[in-house]
Amino acid sequence: MKWKSIGILGKPNAAEQNLDTFKELHKLLTDWQIPAHYESNVGKLLNLPNSACLSTENLVKTSDLVLVVGGDGSMLNAARLSVPFQKPILGVNRGHLGFLTDIGPSELSERLHHVLAGHYWQESRFLLQGEIKYQDQTRHLDIALNDIVLSQGASSQLIEFELWVNATFVCRQRADGLIISTPTGSTAYSLSAGGPILHPGLPAIAIVPMLPHKLTSRPIVISNNVEIKIILTSQNQGPARVSFDSQRRIDMHGHEVIHIRKHAHDLELIHPEDYNYFKTLRDKLHWESR
Amino acid sequence: MKWKSIGILGKPNAAEQNLDTFKELHKLLTDWQIPAHYESNVGKLLNLPNSACLSTENLVKTSDLVLVVGGDGSMLNAARLSVPFQKPILGVNRGHLGFLTDIGPSELSERLHHVLAGHYWQESRFLLQGEIKYQDQTRHLDIALNDIVLSQGASSQLIEFELWVNATFVCRQRADGLIISTPTGSTAYSLSAGGPILHPGLPAIAIVPMLPHKLTSRPIVISNNVEIKIILTSQNQGPARVSFDSQRRIDMHGHEVIHIRKHAHDLELIHPEDYNYFKTLRDKLHWESR
Amino acid sequence: MKWKSIGILGKPNAAEQNLDTFKELHKLLTDWQIPAHYESNVGKLLNLPNSACLSTENLVKTSDLVLVVGGDGSMLNAARLSVPFQKPILGVNRGHLGFLTDIGPSELSERLHHVLAGHYWQESRFLLQGEIKYQDQTRHLDIALNDIVLSQGASSQLIEFELWVNATFVCRQRADGLIISTPTGSTAYSLSAGGPILHPGLPAIAIVPMLPHKLTSRPIVISNNVEIKIILTSQNQGPARVSFDSQRRIDMHGHEVIHIRKHAHDLELIHPEDYNYFKTLRDKLHWESR
Amino acid sequence: MKWKSIGILGKPNAAEQNLDTFKELHKLLTDWQIPAHYESNVGKLLNLPNSACLSTENLVKTSDLVLVVGGDGSMLNAARLSVPFQKPILGVNRGHLGFLTDIGPSELSERLHHVLAGHYWQESRFLLQGEIKYQDQTRHLDIALNDIVLSQGASSQLIEFELWVNATFVCRQRADGLIISTPTGSTAYSLSAGGPILHPGLPAIAIVPMLPHKLTSRPIVISNNVEIKIILTSQNQGPARVSFDSQRRIDMHGHEVIHIRKHAHDLELIHPEDYNYFKTLRDKLHWESR
Repeated sequence: MKWKSIGILGKPNAAEQNLDTFKELHKLLTDWQIPAHYESNVGKLLNLPNSACLSTENLVKTSDLVLVVGGDGSMLNAARLSVPFQKPILGVNRGHLGFLTDIGPSELSERLHHVLAGHYWQESRFLLQGEIKYQDQTRHLDIALNDIVLSQGASSQLIEFELWVNATFVCRQRADGLIISTPTGSTAYSLSAGGPILHPGLPAIAIVPMLPHKLTSRPIVISNNVEIKIILTSQNQGPARVSFDSQRRIDMHGHEVIHIRKHAHDLELIHPEDYNYFKTLRDKLHWESR
Repeated sequence: MKWKSIGILGKPNAAEQNLDTFKELHKLLTDWQIPAHYESNVGKLLNLPNSACLSTENLVKTSDLVLVVGGDGSMLNAARLSVPFQKPILGVNRGHLGFLTDIGPSELSERLHHVLAGHYWQESRFLLQGEIKYQDQTRHLDIALNDIVLSQGASSQLIEFELWVNATFVCRQRADGLIISTPTGSTAYSLSAGGPILHPGLPAIAIVPMLPHKLTSRPIVISNNVEIKIILTSQNQGPARVSFDSQRRIDMHGHEVIHIRKHAHDLELIHPEDYNYFKTLRDKLHWESR
Repeated sequence: MKWKSIGILGKPNAAEQNLDTFKELHKLLTDWQIPAHYESNVGKLLNLPNSACLSTENLVKTSDLVLVVGGDGSMLNAARLSVPFQKPILGVNRGHLGFLTDIGPSELSERLHHVLAGHYWQESRFLLQGEIKYQDQTRHLDIALNDIVLSQGASSQLIEFELWVNATFVCRQRADGLIISTPTGSTAYSLSAGGPILHPGLPAIAIVPMLPHKLTSRPIVISNNVEIKIILTSQNQGPARVSFDSQRRIDMHGHEVIHIRKHAHDLELIHPEDYNYFKTLRDKLHWESR
Repeated sequence: MKWKSIGILGKPNAAEQNLDTFKELHKLLTDWQIPAHYESNVGKLLNLPNSACLSTENLVKTSDLVLVVGGDGSMLNAARLSVPFQKPILGVNRGHLGFLTDIGPSELSERLHHVLAGHYWQESRFLLQGEIKYQDQTRHLDIALNDIVLSQGASSQLIEFELWVNATFVCRQRADGLIISTPTGSTAYSLSAGGPILHPGLPAIAIVPMLPHKLTSRPIVISNNVEIKIILTSQNQGPARVSFDSQRRIDMHGHEVIHIRKHAHDLELIHPEDYNYFKTLRDKLHWESR
């Protein structure tokens, strides 16, 4: 087998929602005699001995492949965990097809076996890194697979900011917020805001305004080798909110700056051999087939 | 001087609209003792001797730099002419700032002198090539700097087509049409259809549906090293129309296929040294400045 | 029974697509001993005697209720026929739910019986009337239940027009076209162009630009007791096209004017008693239910 | 003169921004011998005796016409104050044309005199009333001239809600929020969210989703004689935020319901005689003129 050790991760704080899938997975891996460890919450659900259970971080460190059961949200979480250790991840969904989870529960046995036997396709997806600074000091640094979103904070008021690309001023904008999205995130929140679908292979970032005051404000797509800088102007009442993959949120204050650029490490995503991005798009967006 | 010979082109069939600019241009080039030839219609307007006048094609062939007076439409036309001969072009507009014409009439003397003295910035813009085939035979081949647009023909009815990327089926769509746009064209017709702004340096193509029947049909941005294929299904009543830069139009019939890919040669665009793409965007789209 | 005589209409030129439904309908009406006549093409398909067959116009004239088998397109056609004679219409679809056809083939017997027994809901839907004039002379006059669309004609070029409401100038616009839609049409073509959904009870018209050159051009909703006037400017190359319900198309030339207002007579639409507009919206647009 | 007593209102908490306009206004009214009172902050700025100054509420109560100096935000505030006392309002802007303020500072003398001499046009604009209830008890009741907006609260997460019209369920939705807008508000925040422009004379309400999860969610326009009900589902983490004209904000908790309907009293808006709604639209949205 390609991978010597597999780590099983569930939905954070809600692993029990997928108990049936975990049970089947455990049975399959046991049958196939494939060494596996389980994130502690999952292991407990399955009544596994302590030796089979690991903390999230140790699980990722010691596995060659991280297998995630859940939806796209669980994958975003797993991405954040596995990227620092450069471990590939594979997603199993619980019924609804996801953009990131390719194997459904009804086909688990056949397709997982196929992947583990080496019939898979590995795809690199880049992440964004956002660094909030005050007077050139880093106050917060985080990563995101889908998007980094600047939005209204607790005050629920329009925010005003300046957008810069590298050292060049782009515009000043008043809006509900601004989405900085990877190709991976372009089919998520960015799509609701009118952003384009970016093919996952495209080395590009979408900058998508949310309910902009100016009707001529439009999504911009730009190379992923630039640095995007957003400065809150002094017109804002109260802090804005920065969200990483809609999972972690932090306030950003007037005169603070966020610098966004491509993260140093990619996520390695494992797909079944017959993975077809456009088929996923058709299925998820109900496009017409032939 | 960087360029040994300059060719002057006007708006096709309407060069007289810019007579004042041509006069000033002729005076400047004469004063500066820079060898120049003029497209015949322009030359006649200026009462130049035959020796100073050339047919469009000869003008482009024999010049080192093609100077175009007009709007973005004149630049599209000049691009088509100059790309086969790999000659750079520089645009002078007649009042309204264009996306492709950087020098306004009021600043002609100063900025043109600066450019001709070597203080310029040269930018490569890729073009699209569209090949309409019937049973693998090429029936028409053309190029476009902005966009290739498939739309309703004379029948004014929804068209139905299949979209393919390389050998992969993307979707079947009923719509008023489909815009395949370069970054250069992304601020033109594509923008009216809800397409994103693509930075000119991005090696990407936008595929933008026009009034699609499915509300979930959205613009897709993809690498410019793919081949896009559009097939008219048998459901269409009458031919569809294919338009290259809104300048040349040709009917496309059921069972015909159009193959669209990056053209082999780029356009070389000359800008004054202080050219700033984002400033042009701000000016043209009335975005807010600092 | 409420209605003494029923007229059966099919899809124009394609009645045979719904032969099974016609057969069942004929059997049911015969069983229930309800007098019915059939449009000639339908009657021939069913091998009915000549006495049971009528031309479209005679059918509508002599019936108390017009029963239409087909999709929304067939209903648009039936509306145009029945409105001059003020005859109510009821739609039976062939599988896919329509916005105007409420009874599906699988429930035909039960729901039709219910309606014919008097358990129905009658709804008035207003139509638009468009009058193309040259120098105050009417050249063409037509009606539409969904929309009147001004668009590019055979030339496939942007059109330029002035929009007036009553005697007030609204704006000059360059666009692919302009959709003037009723509430009934607001879920059809207008929706693809970014128009809002107008509740059928609203006495309002939507004016929706198609791919407008100005990004700040937006749909306008206005009372249906105004007169809308569209004037082609002298900038157009070749005629524009005017389409009524995407069914009849006529060219409109420079200096011609189209006057659009509410038609004098409404369409009377018969729904099963449990008709629920919002449920139809949810079903057709895949909105989430409780 | 039509009105016996005029009350002068400024921008709340920032009246000093328009000091020059107040000075001119005071001089004009004195010259014309028109009785006027001033909101206390404005009166102090002008060094007027106490007898000329009134609290906001007393000012509105004792005046026949309320004259507001400021932008559209000041007009929203004035509307809320004057509607309970059924006092008409007239807006004077400070440079930038507003949708609600028709008289600019440079034309103050001439146009104000004209209006006060009886050459004006009075227009009724309806308001919305929102009532937040918990278990059928009213917890908060407020009014809005532009819009009532349900949005993310401090948690910055998607909210999930049910939308009802009268007693009919419309849909369940996950979105950043929902805008319920009057025609007056249709050119404000609602426009940024993709809502249509509703003519001020239209008795209609626009229901406009903000960044909805479902791409098929679209603005709905409905009669203003319905009751709109929005219920937060149990899926929300933390309260949502309800905003009235972006001026007052209140949290709304799970299992609370907001009922929105047309307010009992209209705002009476005074325009100069030559007021033209479409001209205001053209000016504000940079549409093309003839």
